[in-house]
Amino acid sequence: MARIIVVDPFDYVVFGGTGDLARRKLFPALYHRDFDNQLPETARIIGVARRDETTESYRADVEDAIRASLPEGDIDGEALGRFLSRVVYVRADGTRDDGWDELSRVLDERRECIRVFYLATASNLFGPICHRIKNHDLITDKTRLVLEKPIGHDLESSRAINEAVGQDFPEDRIYRIDHYLGKETVQNLMALRFANVLFEPLWNAAHIDHVQITVAETLGLAERAKYYDQAGALRDMVQNHMLQMLCLVAMEPPTCIWADAVRDEKLKVLRALKPIAGRAASNVTVRGQYRAGAADGHAVPGYQQELGPGAPTSQAETFVALKLEIDNWRWAGTPFYLRTGKRLPSRVSEIVVTFRPIPHSIFSRDAGPVVPNRLVIRLQPDEGIKLWLMIKDRGPGGMRLRNVPLDMTFREAFGQRNPDAYERLLLDVVRGNQTLFMRRDEVEAAWRWIDPILEAWDANKEGVKPYTAGSWGPSASIALIERDGRTWYEEDS
Amino acid sequence: MARIIVVDPFDYVVFGGTGDLARRKLFPALYHRDFDNQLPETARIIGVARRDETTESYRADVEDAIRASLPEGDIDGEALGRFLSRVVYVRADGTRDDGWDELSRVLDERRECIRVFYLATASNLFGPICHRIKNHDLITDKTRLVLEKPIGHDLESSRAINEAVGQDFPEDRIYRIDHYLGKETVQNLMALRFANVLFEPLWNAAHIDHVQITVAETLGLAERAKYYDQAGALRDMVQNHMLQMLCLVAMEPPTCIWADAVRDEKLKVLRALKPIAGRAASNVTVRGQYRAGAADGHAVPGYQQELGPGAPTSQAETFVALKLEIDNWRWAGTPFYLRTGKRLPSRVSEIVVTFRPIPHSIFSRDAGPVVPNRLVIRLQPDEGIKLWLMIKDRGPGGMRLRNVPLDMTFREAFGQRNPDAYERLLLDVVRGNQTLFMRRDEVEAAWRWIDPILEAWDANKEGVKPYTAGSWGPSASIALIERDGRTWYEEDS
Repeated sequence: MARIIVVDPFDYVVFGGTGDLARRKLFPALYHRDFDNQLPETARIIGVARRDETTESYRADVEDAIRASLPEGDIDGEALGRFLSRVVYVRADGTRDDGWDELSRVLDERRECIRVFYLATASNLFGPICHRIKNHDLITDKTRLVLEKPIGHDLESSRAINEAVGQDFPEDRIYRIDHYLGKETVQNLMALRFANVLFEPLWNAAHIDHVQITVAETLGLAERAKYYDQAGALRDMVQNHMLQMLCLVAMEPPTCIWADAVRDEKLKVLRALKPIAGRAASNVTVRGQYRAGAADGHAVPGYQQELGPGAPTSQAETFVALKLEIDNWRWAGTPFYLRTGKRLPSRVSEIVVTFRPIPHSIFSRDAGPVVPNRLVIRLQPDEGIKLWLMIKDRGPGGMRLRNVPLDMTFREAFGQRNPDAYERLLLDVVRGNQTLFMRRDEVEAAWRWIDPILEAWDANKEGVKPYTAGSWGPSASIALIERDGRTWYEEDS
Repeated sequence: MARIIVVDPFDYVVFGGTGDLARRKLFPALYHRDFDNQLPETARIIGVARRDETTESYRADVEDAIRASLPEGDIDGEALGRFLSRVVYVRADGTRDDGWDELSRVLDERRECIRVFYLATASNLFGPICHRIKNHDLITDKTRLVLEKPIGHDLESSRAINEAVGQDFPEDRIYRIDHYLGKETVQNLMALRFANVLFEPLWNAAHIDHVQITVAETLGLAERAKYYDQAGALRDMVQNHMLQMLCLVAMEPPTCIWADAVRDEKLKVLRALKPIAGRAASNVTVRGQYRAGAADGHAVPGYQQELGPGAPTSQAETFVALKLEIDNWRWAGTPFYLRTGKRLPSRVSEIVVTFRPIPHSIFSRDAGPVVPNRLVIRLQPDEGIKLWLMIKDRGPGGMRLRNVPLDMTFREAFGQRNPDAYERLLLDVVRGNQTLFMRRDEVEAAWRWIDPILEAWDANKEGVKPYTAGSWGPSASIALIERDGRTWYEEDS
């Protein structure tokens, strides 16, 4: 059971304070930390948005948001009351100076404490907001800035945003959030790899056959149509979450767990990604877009229909699969297969490390097949790490083998709520720990690898292949991996 | 759940049929196999001894033995009745021809079926019994011979016994039993090592710091005084059980699991044991004998007192610890520490493989100590294999590590009775599978390594060091391992 260490006093300023992210993730996460007595008495949460609200009406809104986001059992009336009393609303606009004096006044009540600006807004507002923060003299010695993804839509636009933000904030104050990095299981992967001598000697192409990373959603477009139709799955999922996961699996051991040591190693992986570009891109990537089908037992419309009757024919991919290679000594010869999509059969995010088969079986045919070992790191929906092992089936005669999953995270034994990623990340900012946040060069290295794929699709006129909602994407995705004599992992297979 | 495959019809002839081993182990094991419907309808069990019994009185005796050895819940009246109906008694003497005609007559009722002679007698009777079996023409094409340990008390005597037996039986008919090899966990160790690609690359001196093998008893001398006082712990435990365990841990992968492939590899280990001899033996061996103390909460007398008031001062060791090395590429630099004794604090048989520490910790001091990984293979009292791993303690902040044991055998999940070693071994003889039985050259290689230790003790006048009953042996045993900066493993440490 983890000890609770109260963090230092802070003011958390949330731009986009009436938005979806703040309501669904940030406030519930901060409430949970407050419930666990981790917030100091004087901590404040200051919501900033353009909407006309008072602190009172805003508190009611935050309460609604928390109650809607958390299971009833998580709500404690007294703790919720305490939490809401920390909440303050300031009406201000990122693109104009309206309201900033009020924000200054509220913040200057306590200039000495840690101050966090969390920009839960579109990334084109990052520059303008930062300039105003600077111009209104709101940056103290203990001020930190949190940026939500996506940061731009290609290398050039992400550079421009980072450049604008960088005029006002030095890199060591900037926390680029990717909530996948805050997941308990991701932390546990680091512990497994580097606190045990058992895995690292096997963690290379000599012993690992291939790695799969899957991020599957059952949802369709929902309300993010405008953004998503511009972005597509490669930008929305692969460039950030999936490449970050890949980095944590593939990186060399850092010298320590502190921020730059880890980020240096992740960067090396991103820079070692073998480029996918030109005509060859068609061989190792698959784009798809869902047609009408079924999700969770209900008929659902296709992507184009969801865009609405007047919408022009969209070429946005709602599914992407790709095979990538890492050009370094550790991984040469071990492909990584990535796939992500909307309207897939189940909601699951997982990394599957498949070890090479044993070189020779000493067992008789009666023992049954010897299945290669697998380590399954699951981030969603039920976090956990499983090692699939062959063991002897119990019995007084013969030797029959059985492939069984071993729970490496003691999910049951701990018997505790799994904290949400944001709970860790929001307070890591207060603690000043950048380990789980992306550095500028990482974001840009990821775009540098993504851009040529986008260009190749464009140049090759690589259209989106249709797939039925509720299926595992276009059949070309199956073919992508089966060509290599491998198969996409499915739970309990 | 293992399938039950009925074995071929057999006659099991047990010499020493009224003895302790037959009563406590052999009949209960055969009853269990019968209960599980693994014995063919016509299978017979023929007890042979010198005692004056009828089949009827003997059946009553066997019934008593089974009821006394098994938990009440294991006894099914109908199954027990069926089992007893298979039992026949023949009065015969291994050293004279009395009764052998009757044995011939009973056996010749069915010459065509598998015939097993199980010699559960002192090893000096093995030769005479085998000669009589041969002379009375009882060896059919499907006849097998089972020999109980100990086979002799040194290389010379074991050779003489093997030689005598070998005049009548070829090696491929001889099953030298060491019940440790029949344990479920020992089988599982083979599955873990050779059906998974994960362990073998780590299974060597580069990754394993040292191995401990402990066989601890809480009992004192009991009724085996005469034998034990002649033998001592080195002959009684190390020469057979412990060296066999060591072989299974240390051997190279055999080409197949069939008998000679495995036994060839075990033999190679025995032949690679670095000799312990001469004055140097005092540095790596410890002999002990228990004094009065406590066992299971009761005061108990010392070994000498147990021998009785008139007994001469005994120099038999009831405890031995030793450090050994294996002179081959795989193990050079990884010591094996063995210890066994009577009147120790708990009854436990286990092999503990301690991996080397991680070369460098990336974690902060707050994470807590990083403990080296350990694989604990426990044969008694509760069989199972545990892997001690470092994982992240669950919680929304920081990285705190925890050392936790992972059950590699799914003991709970299987929810089945763990079959006794004899259940497997007795039927392996019927199945004609010698894998888990010792070949002559193994037994002799073990003695060849043991003899010089016995001689060195003699030459060095290495007396027995006293230890208190209920302690972990003489303090010199602790010193033996602590000198190397290591510590005897204790559960949950």
